[in-house]
Amino acid sequence: MTIDRTKIRWNGWGWTAHKDELAGREELWSWLAGELGMPALLATPARPLESITLPAVKLSAEAKARFAGLVGAERVRDDVYERAFHALGKSYHDLLRLRAGELALAPDAVIYPRGGDEVLGVLSAAAELDIAVVPYGGGSSVVGGVSAARGAHAAVVTLDLSGMDRLIEIDPVAMTATAEAGIYGPALEKALGAKGFTLGHHPQSFEFSTLGGWIAHRGAGQGSGRYGRAETWLVGAKMATPRGSLSVGGFPASSAGPQLLDLALGSEGAFGVVTEATVRLHAAPAASEYRGYLFRDFASGTAAIREAVQSGLDATMLRLSDAAETRFYRTYGALGKKRGIGDRLAQIFLDTRGFDDKACAMIAGFEGAAADVAKGRGAFDAIAKKHRALALGEGQGKRWKDGRFHGPYLRDPMMDRGVGVDTLETATRWSNIETLYVAVKDALEKAIRETAPRDGAHGIVSCHISHSYPDGASLYFTYIFPRALEREIAQWQAIKTAASDAIAANGGTISHHHGVGDDHLPWMAGEKGALGVDVLRAVKMALDPKSVMNPGKLIPGQ
Amino acid sequence: MTIDRTKIRWNGWGWTAHKDELAGREELWSWLAGELGMPALLATPARPLESITLPAVKLSAEAKARFAGLVGAERVRDDVYERAFHALGKSYHDLLRLRAGELALAPDAVIYPRGGDEVLGVLSAAAELDIAVVPYGGGSSVVGGVSAARGAHAAVVTLDLSGMDRLIEIDPVAMTATAEAGIYGPALEKALGAKGFTLGHHPQSFEFSTLGGWIAHRGAGQGSGRYGRAETWLVGAKMATPRGSLSVGGFPASSAGPQLLDLALGSEGAFGVVTEATVRLHAAPAASEYRGYLFRDFASGTAAIREAVQSGLDATMLRLSDAAETRFYRTYGALGKKRGIGDRLAQIFLDTRGFDDKACAMIAGFEGAAADVAKGRGAFDAIAKKHRALALGEGQGKRWKDGRFHGPYLRDPMMDRGVGVDTLETATRWSNIETLYVAVKDALEKAIRETAPRDGAHGIVSCHISHSYPDGASLYFTYIFPRALEREIAQWQAIKTAASDAIAANGGTISHHHGVGDDHLPWMAGEKGALGVDVLRAVKMALDPKSVMNPGKLIPGQ
Repeated sequence: MTIDRTKIRWNGWGWTAHKDELAGREELWSWLAGELGMPALLATPARPLESITLPAVKLSAEAKARFAGLVGAERVRDDVYERAFHALGKSYHDLLRLRAGELALAPDAVIYPRGGDEVLGVLSAAAELDIAVVPYGGGSSVVGGVSAARGAHAAVVTLDLSGMDRLIEIDPVAMTATAEAGIYGPALEKALGAKGFTLGHHPQSFEFSTLGGWIAHRGAGQGSGRYGRAETWLVGAKMATPRGSLSVGGFPASSAGPQLLDLALGSEGAFGVVTEATVRLHAAPAASEYRGYLFRDFASGTAAIREAVQSGLDATMLRLSDAAETRFYRTYGALGKKRGIGDRLAQIFLDTRGFDDKACAMIAGFEGAAADVAKGRGAFDAIAKKHRALALGEGQGKRWKDGRFHGPYLRDPMMDRGVGVDTLETATRWSNIETLYVAVKDALEKAIRETAPRDGAHGIVSCHISHSYPDGASLYFTYIFPRALEREIAQWQAIKTAASDAIAANGGTISHHHGVGDDHLPWMAGEKGALGVDVLRAVKMALDPKSVMNPGKLIPGQ
Repeated sequence: MTIDRTKIRWNGWGWTAHKDELAGREELWSWLAGELGMPALLATPARPLESITLPAVKLSAEAKARFAGLVGAERVRDDVYERAFHALGKSYHDLLRLRAGELALAPDAVIYPRGGDEVLGVLSAAAELDIAVVPYGGGSSVVGGVSAARGAHAAVVTLDLSGMDRLIEIDPVAMTATAEAGIYGPALEKALGAKGFTLGHHPQSFEFSTLGGWIAHRGAGQGSGRYGRAETWLVGAKMATPRGSLSVGGFPASSAGPQLLDLALGSEGAFGVVTEATVRLHAAPAASEYRGYLFRDFASGTAAIREAVQSGLDATMLRLSDAAETRFYRTYGALGKKRGIGDRLAQIFLDTRGFDDKACAMIAGFEGAAADVAKGRGAFDAIAKKHRALALGEGQGKRWKDGRFHGPYLRDPMMDRGVGVDTLETATRWSNIETLYVAVKDALEKAIRETAPRDGAHGIVSCHISHSYPDGASLYFTYIFPRALEREIAQWQAIKTAASDAIAANGGTISHHHGVGDDHLPWMAGEKGALGVDVLRAVKMALDPKSVMNPGKLIPGQ
């Protein structure tokens, strides 16, 4: 309980104390209503916790005493706030339920272990007592990864790992660090930075997510171009399972059979709990430069990224917004500001140079030694120029970096006003990017129109490429839509299903970095195949024969 | 049967037509006897195939007809040559048995399928008929990966994939290629090179190994610094299993749960057969430069490699011989040559500069665009200089590259003369390299002395670092020893056990790139842990419930 749960919003994003940037900006809300084809926005406030009744606690006094004996009575919590806080994650689907006070899935207790041995004890007792266990790091899952489902068990407890946040060792020769899995992003980076190192894993949830969560959902940070994904930087992990302790990986490379890192990476708590991990570090970057570019269209921006990545250029991030996202942020940023002579001159300049409403903005980031940053940026400048892009300078890059973790805060005030906002993401090979992009965008726009609360209402569907590889890239869609208040779960499900079916039918993975959780489970059998699902089930049975770990997650039909 | 099996040695390495470079070089053999503490070497020729009796074929006529119905009668072979050729791999342990004519493990038939569907049919029939199946690519395993063990089954067939060698597709945009798994290294590189690409996977067995074999044993090529290991370049694979077809991976990146690439990578035929793979390509390198360096000792050479790799320097290969290997190749290369004034001046120069018998040779290779090669080499020159190494120029590098696949040919003439030669390898983190190196070297030297055919006889134990990573590196040991002819299997086992125990006790993996096979199986339970072995067994049961796939391999206790 190193991090105080009462300082984080139980039914929204981030710090309770975070100031609502959109409060009182009525010009923005009326503009947004117009963009969504709505006459006005509605007031749809969240229900306060005081007015919500939680289901009765199903954990027996004997079971509670058993857990208390293992971790200490003060570390087994079943007050209303703890149960509500840990009921669900931060997906749109979760927020709909949290804000409506639908807490049918609240855990019967929240347990805060202080180390791997305590976790082993809890899992063993849970299997014996027929109690489901939901592992919980920062709880920032946006796909329903931490919903406190009881399944067919007698009760469900959430295992909150935030009390396991020690940095155990830095090996400066091997450039690795070993830490407990519950350490949060900022605490980990602070400890590493003090020794001149960084892990460089900065997902948008950085402030509210943990090392173990990044591994368990196989995540990627914004700087994955330089620092890699969880599977790039994970050397080895210790896992606690109901059948005991398990170590996976641990060598720089090995051909001693399967390395079994998949038991941790992407396992989402369904096999056990990642309690400790060893990760590869980088030297803390001496220099950092983030810059804006404007491409004529999505295709030329995509081609530039592909050329950069395939030529081995050392870019930390190449983030290309499509035309819709570019227009949205440009208009949004200009709202309520006086348009000066500079803005008008800039527009004339862009018009003259042939940049129209197909133009796509990119933020390109470079980190490392000063010389490497200069070289990477110079090489990318040349590629951008070749693709007839306009270099916009450091201002845009700095603005992006300053707000890199703030995006999710915008969702709550939108949800207060009858507006839904969700994101989804996928990845495919370069030769299929355009096909997948068009298919998913079309599916989203169509489903939003078809489920809108009134005729003529529609959504804003935008997309960016945020992670690139030599063979392909990710596509990240944001969609904003007017909520159909009487059937909003069904509305969301229809939109999600349409987009996910389009992904599956067009060669994309159902998730590039969000994970599976509840929301992507229906597409897992298609992506993994019947035999692949059999293998996942067999692994689960080997480690969790009573199926108490995170019921209903990861494996279809469990 | 694209590659003619009769042109490859059935009981030794490589092409039948390859000229024995050591024939008639008596000065070499007497020097080697002296180095091993032996008065003379013995004549220990291999038994000719004509004098060897193979076990009776156990495959029933019905079973043979069933397989013939699936792949064609001419593709089910049970003649003596085919059975002997496919009996074992190319490990020292295998060669001892092949040369002695001990063919108890010969397959009852060899089946040559022409595609994934035929493989599926064979596996399904084998499971139904209780017949063990040993998948076979190039058969170059040096750890007993293809021994035709029947296990508890009625018969055993070897599935030779050399008839499945089509390059199916190159995707020039994603820079990937899809090929059938039986394609050999040279054929694959030739087809890729014609389109301007390379995979760059060049293990020492390159000429005699296949794409599927590289994946199934989780291998690394000599140029892994630039081109990566099998797990780096594998995008996705199709597997045939007794329970049907399975696709794993296939995306540039994904967080849709475990990616299951371990079902192919390192599976060694125990789960099924890799029939097709999609791999990441590089542009064929425009330039290539391999150069020699001389370091003062192993520690300074190791430090230079670590500095290069951790600074992100783009080296294709950094191969550092220890002092024993450096001395061995220097003396070996000079044998029988007249020592001229140049050699004497070179020696005086080295003496003056303080290079003594601790000196360690390195070959550093750089491939890619000309500018990148020049940059990489320049950066490494600076690092080498900082570590007080001597740059030896391109001659040494060219000699290494010209002979890069020839090493294994030296083993057969040694084995004809009572000399044993084997290799083993491991990997560990940088902070543990010296400890592991000393422990394994000591264990090998001691075990060779203790098992030698006479008092005072001893081995030549040498080592090099051949593959490096930001967090650690591999150690590759070569050991040459006088054979104790009356107990040579026991002698080899004692030496192997001593070295492997030292690896396990000192933080190394039991294999960095050779795989598990028969030889490393006893150390798998220690490395994977009891639960890890349970998971491997559960996966096997999900895919191969009758346990017909490669019996006795990969999973201890199967």
